[in-house]
Amino acid sequence: MTDTTTVVLDTIMSRKSVRNYTGEPVTKACLLALLKAGMAAPSARNRQPLAFVAVTERNILNALGEGLPFTKMLFKAGACIVVCGDSSVELQAGATDLWHQDAAAATENILLAAEAMRLGAVWSALFPMSEREDHVRKLLKLPAGVDPFSIIPVGHPAGGDLPKDKFKGEKIHWEVW
Amino acid sequence: MTDTTTVVLDTIMSRKSVRNYTGEPVTKACLLALLKAGMAAPSARNRQPLAFVAVTERNILNALGEGLPFTKMLFKAGACIVVCGDSSVELQAGATDLWHQDAAAATENILLAAEAMRLGAVWSALFPMSEREDHVRKLLKLPAGVDPFSIIPVGHPAGGDLPKDKFKGEKIHWEVW
Repeated sequence: MTDTTTVVLDTIMSRKSVRNYTGEPVTKACLLALLKAGMAAPSARNRQPLAFVAVTERNILNALGEGLPFTKMLFKAGACIVVCGDSSVELQAGATDLWHQDAAAATENILLAAEAMRLGAVWSALFPMSEREDHVRKLLKLPAGVDPFSIIPVGHPAGGDLPKDKFKGEKIHWEVW
Repeated sequence: MTDTTTVVLDTIMSRKSVRNYTGEPVTKACLLALLKAGMAAPSARNRQPLAFVAVTERNILNALGEGLPFTKMLFKAGACIVVCGDSSVELQAGATDLWHQDAAAATENILLAAEAMRLGAVWSALFPMSEREDHVRKLLKLPAGVDPFSIIPVGHPAGGDLPKDKFKGEKIHWEVW
């Protein structure tokens, strides 16, 4: 294995859900790097049906957290990224059933990029919980046809959030089940 | 940025859908590394509701390809990985609506690991196309409650498959839409 291989595989294995942050801000340059990683994810038929809202303002982060029961870490996060599907793209593609998969891939890319940048991030699901979606849609003024999929709080890790070893050999089947 | 940051972000940006392979086999050790990367992906409530079938036998790869109109690259691939949801785990979790997101994250991890290992891979969707799912389910003898999500042909790149620059600044909205 080359160094590149080792470094990337190590990052994949080290990625963790980071829910505790120092409170330090996250720069727009960092967020832009995360967003570039998100946009580099594959999409069905390469339709790229996603859009992103990046939030750094304290009052918006707090307001988001107030309406999301499982995303209270926004109160301490320096920023968040909301991954959205944009149906104006999606409908043109006719791939209406696949944009959630594209959005999940983009979310994972953002998490891995954050890990590589020594930032902490965590995937918090919005879709398909309509109450959570509506809260985010309203606060972020999402237009009709734009649907929030996930919200990713981002911050500088306070420490203590550790990766889990999730490898289970019995989940692998060779050739056939 | 550290070297690690650069290497990982470069890999994320370089990942591409590789559909052309040399025909060389892919070792089980390589497949195991890919599967470890897949299992390291996050899952809703950490329920880890996935299972994987790794195929290297030529006749099975060909038979899979024959019934999948958009996955003919299996005829030249050295192997493939089928990412599945295992509802025996899922139902315990009560997170029945989220396993597709977990499976998409695992699929993306496998694609990134392949890129880092200088292998070529491509995400081919099975879910929610029931004819594709049924073809794979039957050939791989998936038990009831195990649902195929994606099939990832893997091979040694023949060259010619290039990454796309998908960055579009207009897809980013700051603070609110």
